[in-house]
Amino acid sequence: MVYRNIRRADGDIAARLGTFGTATVHEAMGRTGLMKPYMRPVYAGAEACGTAVTVLLHTGDNWMLHVVAEQIRPGDVVVAAVTTECTDGYFGDLLATSFKARGARGLVIDGGVRDVRVLAEMGFPVWSKAISAKGTVKATLGSVNVPVVCAGALVTPGDVIVADDDGVVVVPAALAQQTLDAASARDANEASKRARLAEGVLGLDMYSMREPLKKAGLRYID
Amino acid sequence: MVYRNIRRADGDIAARLGTFGTATVHEAMGRTGLMKPYMRPVYAGAEACGTAVTVLLHTGDNWMLHVVAEQIRPGDVVVAAVTTECTDGYFGDLLATSFKARGARGLVIDGGVRDVRVLAEMGFPVWSKAISAKGTVKATLGSVNVPVVCAGALVTPGDVIVADDDGVVVVPAALAQQTLDAASARDANEASKRARLAEGVLGLDMYSMREPLKKAGLRYID
Amino acid sequence: MVYRNIRRADGDIAARLGTFGTATVHEAMGRTGLMKPYMRPVYAGAEACGTAVTVLLHTGDNWMLHVVAEQIRPGDVVVAAVTTECTDGYFGDLLATSFKARGARGLVIDGGVRDVRVLAEMGFPVWSKAISAKGTVKATLGSVNVPVVCAGALVTPGDVIVADDDGVVVVPAALAQQTLDAASARDANEASKRARLAEGVLGLDMYSMREPLKKAGLRYID
Amino acid sequence: MVYRNIRRADGDIAARLGTFGTATVHEAMGRTGLMKPYMRPVYAGAEACGTAVTVLLHTGDNWMLHVVAEQIRPGDVVVAAVTTECTDGYFGDLLATSFKARGARGLVIDGGVRDVRVLAEMGFPVWSKAISAKGTVKATLGSVNVPVVCAGALVTPGDVIVADDDGVVVVPAALAQQTLDAASARDANEASKRARLAEGVLGLDMYSMREPLKKAGLRYID
Amino acid sequence: MVYRNIRRADGDIAARLGTFGTATVHEAMGRTGLMKPYMRPVYAGAEACGTAVTVLLHTGDNWMLHVVAEQIRPGDVVVAAVTTECTDGYFGDLLATSFKARGARGLVIDGGVRDVRVLAEMGFPVWSKAISAKGTVKATLGSVNVPVVCAGALVTPGDVIVADDDGVVVVPAALAQQTLDAASARDANEASKRARLAEGVLGLDMYSMREPLKKAGLRYID
Amino acid sequence: MVYRNIRRADGDIAARLGTFGTATVHEAMGRTGLMKPYMRPVYAGAEACGTAVTVLLHTGDNWMLHVVAEQIRPGDVVVAAVTTECTDGYFGDLLATSFKARGARGLVIDGGVRDVRVLAEMGFPVWSKAISAKGTVKATLGSVNVPVVCAGALVTPGDVIVADDDGVVVVPAALAQQTLDAASARDANEASKRARLAEGVLGLDMYSMREPLKKAGLRYID
Repeated sequence: MVYRNIRRADGDIAARLGTFGTATVHEAMGRTGLMKPYMRPVYAGAEACGTAVTVLLHTGDNWMLHVVAEQIRPGDVVVAAVTTECTDGYFGDLLATSFKARGARGLVIDGGVRDVRVLAEMGFPVWSKAISAKGTVKATLGSVNVPVVCAGALVTPGDVIVADDDGVVVVPAALAQQTLDAASARDANEASKRARLAEGVLGLDMYSMREPLKKAGLRYID
Repeated sequence: MVYRNIRRADGDIAARLGTFGTATVHEAMGRTGLMKPYMRPVYAGAEACGTAVTVLLHTGDNWMLHVVAEQIRPGDVVVAAVTTECTDGYFGDLLATSFKARGARGLVIDGGVRDVRVLAEMGFPVWSKAISAKGTVKATLGSVNVPVVCAGALVTPGDVIVADDDGVVVVPAALAQQTLDAASARDANEASKRARLAEGVLGLDMYSMREPLKKAGLRYID
Repeated sequence: MVYRNIRRADGDIAARLGTFGTATVHEAMGRTGLMKPYMRPVYAGAEACGTAVTVLLHTGDNWMLHVVAEQIRPGDVVVAAVTTECTDGYFGDLLATSFKARGARGLVIDGGVRDVRVLAEMGFPVWSKAISAKGTVKATLGSVNVPVVCAGALVTPGDVIVADDDGVVVVPAALAQQTLDAASARDANEASKRARLAEGVLGLDMYSMREPLKKAGLRYID
Repeated sequence: MVYRNIRRADGDIAARLGTFGTATVHEAMGRTGLMKPYMRPVYAGAEACGTAVTVLLHTGDNWMLHVVAEQIRPGDVVVAAVTTECTDGYFGDLLATSFKARGARGLVIDGGVRDVRVLAEMGFPVWSKAISAKGTVKATLGSVNVPVVCAGALVTPGDVIVADDDGVVVVPAALAQQTLDAASARDANEASKRARLAEGVLGLDMYSMREPLKKAGLRYID
Repeated sequence: MVYRNIRRADGDIAARLGTFGTATVHEAMGRTGLMKPYMRPVYAGAEACGTAVTVLLHTGDNWMLHVVAEQIRPGDVVVAAVTTECTDGYFGDLLATSFKARGARGLVIDGGVRDVRVLAEMGFPVWSKAISAKGTVKATLGSVNVPVVCAGALVTPGDVIVADDDGVVVVPAALAQQTLDAASARDANEASKRARLAEGVLGLDMYSMREPLKKAGLRYID
Repeated sequence: MVYRNIRRADGDIAARLGTFGTATVHEAMGRTGLMKPYMRPVYAGAEACGTAVTVLLHTGDNWMLHVVAEQIRPGDVVVAAVTTECTDGYFGDLLATSFKARGARGLVIDGGVRDVRVLAEMGFPVWSKAISAKGTVKATLGSVNVPVVCAGALVTPGDVIVADDDGVVVVPAALAQQTLDAASARDANEASKRARLAEGVLGLDMYSMREPLKKAGLRYID
């Protein structure tokens, strides 16, 4: 089944969440929503944020990636789950060309991809669990825009996806605004902390940790 | 044992296969001959193609790499299998210097290598399953130019090896010409497809998938 | 417990060991002291050497990284072990700013880190077993400057750490001078070998291997 | 947060689903809902089925297992997710005694357990990703009876869990009856198939595969 | 393609090789032909030996297992390779019933299987890399009785397969007799060695190792 | 080098520590000293405790296991580390016969073993990271009775080793008595706790957790 109408999180909020990066957004989410760390960008410096369109692929079969292409709107990030663990290369430069033409900001796939050098040259960011030249068949149906579990995280169509060198975070659409607020607060906070730490101030003092550490029993031995 | 006389695939065909990259060659081979995706280039952008000279190493012992060096002819790629899984660094900048001087185009090794920064500076491409500073001993014999299983693929001496960022493919010498023909046909085909996809044409239409998807039971829900 | 007074290896010897790189130092150590190859630099080209200050972290808890920061002296490399295998991001750009301000040369951590793009921009080298945006809590004490096992290697506070693209080597403080001597001898030796190999001389001849190979039973077949 | 009121699937349906085993239930579900195969029973022959109460644990912290114990009703299976991958032993014979006394039918945990020999002697079935003597702290809150992702599968409190030597399947409460019907039909079917196959009838004939195989291009060579 | 006529190794030799077990046969083969150690029996105490019929499966597709069933002759062991790494359960109790009725002695599969408790009850031995309740589709052709690489070992149809708790060894048909002779000699030898070691004689003395150890530089320190 | 004189922990204390099992001993040690959970017994129900004699093996080489055999005294457990990760079968029934005749209580090895069915029949307990029929060579020296890192834990000759189905714990000789005391206290404690939990008392009440959970912010929602 292909669900054509999904409620996307606000695109502007998604874009602003992207400016904070995954580490800050993940903290702002209360440390939830992170995909497993085996999801890595296929080239260094890859960054993407946008609203999720989802697809569930059958093992070793990329037919549904062509189906999901039609559902992409500018500002979307495609999130592809696979029914079993498989490292085949489901996605390469041709599909990237198509996704990019449709306005996709990137792909997150719990499987393999190929043509990674071309993807880097095109600047089409992809997070995957493997790189493999092996192609896939087009024989079995899957689903588009259903909730999927991708790399251990639940993704509902329309959620905000933030991805960079540190991983991939999923922000449920309903929490996008409050996560943005929390991330903004946290970020503002970090700039001044960074400056003080650069001057040599210790976290022990800046965060007033000496007392709680002592209470917890920390002892110094000379 | 060291077999000195092997029948190499035609060097020109090997070189032309290399221009297509592993994904296209693997498709042209009917999706066979690919090494497992744990074989990764030690630096981004590495590319190699050539005829295989093979060596079977004992675990933690690189003695036979010196023996295989003498059997290298310009245009060869050395393929090294190891009797058990081991991540030791069997190969470093000195052997790379020697292999390069002999005309080798690269190394594919089902073990570890070291001096990877120097390998990148030298531009000597290597695909391995690990990077490790750990050296090896020189105590036990192996074989040169026998058929080996490397990263799950059978390699017969003289086969064509094509390797890039997407992995490593083995083309049996007897299939080199027909694989080249198939790869050429496929590649010609891809350029026009890419152009159409870039214009926004969907794969669903370009590949006439709508009918078979419908027959397979795909349903759209608004 | 936090041990404040440790006997550091001589900083000059540490610096000179660093010039040889891990492969040479590991050989000079008699092939001991290498961490497991899953310890990888978070950016290509990372290099560090210095004297170890150590910290033992509780799983998913980075409180003690703030404690160890105070014990850093210029020229130190922080070595962080974790009580169980865990990929959380214990360390990011704020702690890196603090460590750098204290004079640390780098971090080696048997867990995960985050903000890796910023770490690369700052030029603060880190070796870790994972990259993860996931943060950690500050709830449980650990130890500072006790002997730790990190990635399979024993590290005593004050030992010399040499780390680069090939991995991480630990040189016990008591062996630093003799390892430096052995590494120097080995290195001098390598330059002339490299030149000869580049001219096409075979290792078989340069190392006089033909006789022992024959004795071991090597046979050539035409 | 701890949700005390959840809607459990019908206990009788859960029990009857358990009689079919995971392979049949997974087929009856349309091949969805299976946890990843790294989830293994801690002793051979373990079997459990029941309604899910869920708990989300912090890495290396089992405090919430004591909280979830109070929410167990006879016929439940506890499903424990962990915020990051961690192999610590969160659960041992004391908690098993408590869970059993509360009427739990088993535990499915995306982490480690210990005291496995006692668990086998008690006949309290557990599926886990690791066995480890390492204990955990009690310092950080998690949640009870929220939807969790466990070993790649989404589990909503009240869902039916079926677990045996082949793995763990999750049946959403709303689909329990129809899955039971499908499993019953499939199972009835299997008995007669098994008898015919045991007599030497080939699947090729029993399933009328010869024609479709021929159409797909299968060729026989003598 | 399905090759119907293969040259099987002598069945009697295969049966006698089986009596020695994989460790002895592997030594008798000169330490070659062993599959990777991730291939494990699905129940303790499983043992099988026989002549190989081979099948190459597409990822997540077990159609060809029905095709290979027809090619089984009494005394065969089925060896199944898969085009990519995949843990799906390709094989369960129905296929086991069919294979057993055809005279198969066991299955070696570089993928997953299910119904493992029934397999144990039936006494149908299987070696696999995973156990998974997940079923497979029947959509794509593969090959029967072609040479395959299974778990890192090359298997040619008709080769002898010996499998037990220690793993799986492949003996090329042409080497079966000489391997049997070598295994017999080795085995006779072991009985007397075992008796002497049980009496407390040291291997150091029984194998006359003291002199070579001393020459190699072994030193004793009191 | 082979150190012949080591200071063993008291044998009686070692034996009594063994009665508590690894989980209790590990807790009594303050949750330190546990080997990584990949160390598994080769048969279910294996148990061993004793004083450590250690050996450092070269990758794929078991020569030193014959050397360490002579250093075994009744009540010892042999702990074998390997210079690199390797799954070869370093140890089988002949060495087990020899070790047993010398009085060894078991083997802990950071590599592979073979003949596991015979080991189970002999009742000689072994913990390893792999099972493999692959044999090893006898070509390179290692060390006996030096401190080694085995599966992530530091083992000094003479330490107490406690191993069972839950893993392997190392108790430094100097801490053996105090660990025994702590384990005894903990164990006495557990019996009464178990009885109360079996009666249905909740850990929440027995451990007085309700107040701290409330303080930490736990909320119940009906």
